[in-house]
Amino acid sequence: MTIETEAFIGYLAAFLTTAAFLPQAYKSWRSRDLSGISLPMYAMFTAGVGFWLVYGLMIGSTPVILANLITFVLSSTVLGLKIQQVLAANSKRR
Amino acid sequence: MTIETEAFIGYLAAFLTTAAFLPQAYKSWRSRDLSGISLPMYAMFTAGVGFWLVYGLMIGSTPVILANLITFVLSSTVLGLKIQQVLAANSKRR
Repeated sequence: MTIETEAFIGYLAAFLTTAAFLPQAYKSWRSRDLSGISLPMYAMFTAGVGFWLVYGLMIGSTPVILANLITFVLSSTVLGLKIQQVLAANSKRR
Repeated sequence: MTIETEAFIGYLAAFLTTAAFLPQAYKSWRSRDLSGISLPMYAMFTAGVGFWLVYGLMIGSTPVILANLITFVLSSTVLGLKIQQVLAANSKRR
């Protein structure tokens, strides 16, 4: 098992899970319809991805860093939209 | 930065992203309603998680192994249900 095989598997994994997440983020961004998204779950997921990024930097794994950097940017954008909508709905209710 | 801090961040990341995935898998399993799930995207995600598991074994990272092992079991169960439904829908159409 070479370092090249290791890196190849890592980048393949990073590509697949990031690519699977992209359409979801794009759909949420375009439609602004976040009704199907649970705020606590999404906040948990975004925090988790942030910690994966820190962990990737700590262990020096480029596939872990890249995958989680991209996912963190997308996921925190969607989270920001969801928070805006929750706040707007709350202020209307008052 | 110690190995303990590294492991703590890794397990925290693993816990958060796995915990955020659990309710989705549980809901799909209980309701058998997989209409909102795209087969190609979910197949891609499941394959990606499988490769993360292999990558985790290669680099010897227990947090990466554990998180992706649990997610792979859940995700491939949901994928199996989705494939069954798609096949059933196709055979009815004939």
